[in-house]
Amino acid sequence: MPKVEIITIGDEILIGQIVDTNSAWMASELNKAGFEIAQVTSVHDVANHITASLTDALERADIVLLTGGLGPTKDDITKQTLCEYFDTKLVFSDEVLKNIENLFRNREWSLNKLNRSQAYVPENCTVIQNFAGTAPITWFEKDGKVVVSMPGVPNEMKHVMSREIIPRLQKRFDTPTIIHKTVIVHGYPESQLALKIADWENALPKNIHLAYLPDYGIVRLRLSGASEDGLALEFAINQQVESLTQILGNAITAYEDLPLEVQIGNILKEKGKTLATAESCTGGNIAHKITTVPGSSAYFKGSVVSYANEIKVNVLGVSPEDIENYGAVSEAVVKQMAEGVRKLMKTDFAVATSGIAGPDGGTPEKPVGTVWIAVSSADDTVARQFRYGSARIANIERTTQTAFLMLKEIILCEY
Amino acid sequence: MPKVEIITIGDEILIGQIVDTNSAWMASELNKAGFEIAQVTSVHDVANHITASLTDALERADIVLLTGGLGPTKDDITKQTLCEYFDTKLVFSDEVLKNIENLFRNREWSLNKLNRSQAYVPENCTVIQNFAGTAPITWFEKDGKVVVSMPGVPNEMKHVMSREIIPRLQKRFDTPTIIHKTVIVHGYPESQLALKIADWENALPKNIHLAYLPDYGIVRLRLSGASEDGLALEFAINQQVESLTQILGNAITAYEDLPLEVQIGNILKEKGKTLATAESCTGGNIAHKITTVPGSSAYFKGSVVSYANEIKVNVLGVSPEDIENYGAVSEAVVKQMAEGVRKLMKTDFAVATSGIAGPDGGTPEKPVGTVWIAVSSADDTVARQFRYGSARIANIERTTQTAFLMLKEIILCEY
Repeated sequence: MPKVEIITIGDEILIGQIVDTNSAWMASELNKAGFEIAQVTSVHDVANHITASLTDALERADIVLLTGGLGPTKDDITKQTLCEYFDTKLVFSDEVLKNIENLFRNREWSLNKLNRSQAYVPENCTVIQNFAGTAPITWFEKDGKVVVSMPGVPNEMKHVMSREIIPRLQKRFDTPTIIHKTVIVHGYPESQLALKIADWENALPKNIHLAYLPDYGIVRLRLSGASEDGLALEFAINQQVESLTQILGNAITAYEDLPLEVQIGNILKEKGKTLATAESCTGGNIAHKITTVPGSSAYFKGSVVSYANEIKVNVLGVSPEDIENYGAVSEAVVKQMAEGVRKLMKTDFAVATSGIAGPDGGTPEKPVGTVWIAVSSADDTVARQFRYGSARIANIERTTQTAFLMLKEIILCEY
Repeated sequence: MPKVEIITIGDEILIGQIVDTNSAWMASELNKAGFEIAQVTSVHDVANHITASLTDALERADIVLLTGGLGPTKDDITKQTLCEYFDTKLVFSDEVLKNIENLFRNREWSLNKLNRSQAYVPENCTVIQNFAGTAPITWFEKDGKVVVSMPGVPNEMKHVMSREIIPRLQKRFDTPTIIHKTVIVHGYPESQLALKIADWENALPKNIHLAYLPDYGIVRLRLSGASEDGLALEFAINQQVESLTQILGNAITAYEDLPLEVQIGNILKEKGKTLATAESCTGGNIAHKITTVPGSSAYFKGSVVSYANEIKVNVLGVSPEDIENYGAVSEAVVKQMAEGVRKLMKTDFAVATSGIAGPDGGTPEKPVGTVWIAVSSADDTVARQFRYGSARIANIERTTQTAFLMLKEIILCEY
């Protein structure tokens, strides 16, 4: 399997100003296409640091992909550095200038000399046009290995990786079939799960690799393999998943690694049912996750984020006496929230959350992390209490994921 | 300035299953504490790959921080690998076992042999207890350099970095004062901004470094410096920011790198004003962002996510004739959404969004990416139209950030 290394260039990653989301996306796409990612390295915008890491990477890998450092400003030096590394010089490209001019035609600003400078490209390389931005992509070959430099701006990188770089790499190198199969297991901590499936794991064929990926309330088990014979590999992996199902039964909640909001969307669409949410402690995160899915307007009608108690009463119809007697974080209130929004938005299902996300607002009786979640349908409204930790963002995420799990279970049971 | 390298260990990053958010957090915290991050490297759970990258890192840096590969399952091999690297053996630690037992006291599962195996630690190292999880932290010293291995689970890593590792590193190494000052500039594309401030940038003192960080609708300009004399450095950086202000004036929208939802929260709290949101295309993302801020319940009352038109009419009081005549993505409708939610939730301010996030739903007249945003206050309701691209998630994020910018401008103007 051809080996790829990714080098991200830019101070912003190394001072922690941005999170490197590019590498994960690139790794996932390259892996699907039959390439192994041997290493990801983040370095500063410093010439000798860039060249040293490039030299090291070329010793280990067949392909090195560089992202970043191609902006028009002084701090970006990747292009000049590669010119020196490959012992070539910059030449002006009319074709690249034309692309930059086209991009500016739709913008309110006009081309300046810095933008024009981006039309200079190394002489001894293949230039790939960047139709989503002004920095061109350069493809170098040396001793049978390939080095590609591309922008770090995520949408520009994704555009050119999908349409140009991966297809060209697949032509240039022989790639096997890669299969990953992920099984989502609910209700086991990682170490208990490992004991439960130890015999099965120890008997796995050598060419199938198992990884445990624990997340909020679930463990992803990922089976991976690479083979010239894709069909045989797929058969072998499916067989292992079948054996695993016999051991774990209902604890397996999904056989594909789709986000719960996508799984729930697919079920609702299939059943022709609709959904609304009433959110207190999750503050709109459930609605946000649902609406990141294209086409969600087919089954999602809306949400009431009732952060203030008066909104619970006036908009959702929660009893003010119940808030007084039991508190906003209680079974009575969360059930009325779910029922209230289901009636208000005339949907088949509704999910509601009320909890203390923290860091303040806890009491001895209801410490920070106490959460109630309710799901309402035409048949019934059920509510459950959970106790999470003291970290606000983690509490919001956990509550969101658990609400999705409860919702999925109930949508699958009913009808 | 002592140099640190971070090595993240785990297949999951290199096959793109998870995004490495740890490194950015660690880099940011270490940088504040006076350490320079020289490189971040992600490697597989493979012994010779781990030791090779550790050897390389120790050649460049004073400190190497390893995260990950410490779970109780078979795929995790960091501890064994470090034992071989530092030529030592595993010994059983009663103290670590006690910590693990304490952690399990609050859980429904009981301790098993895999958990107990985590109490084995390398003999020749300092063991630091992990009070947030079962994998202990190990601190090695070699030739005046420090190697620390810690879990990759984000909350465990953050807990032990803040409380133990950074304080110990600060005692062990001499660190200078580091100052970063970020200025947020609105309304200039990166290349135009670079030309506008070129003279100022060229005249910057050598010990102050400038970086451009473009984001949705803004450019962050970051001035950084390191010095033994913290006061002199601060004075020099502040002087540069003053000169920059004379050049850019109102285009500077903030002098600190706080997320807009935090800035808006601070202003609302200070003025004692309240906020609600009515969201269509942003689907709850504005409310979600606002409520990630601790204490947001003091000024945020809630949101109506009106994904379906009937919710716009029935809950927010939008005129069905206006939806019929102008469409849901229109000035008339977005203004009524903002006014409607402001009245419904009795707040001082409200922001509303309506747009076509994509990938479907566009028309020649209103292509995907067409967005209306309105801000309503006691004085007035203003609305503006924006045209973004074709990527759904990017459109949701851009609309959210632009809504915050409009909201901030209006909150600052009024009263």
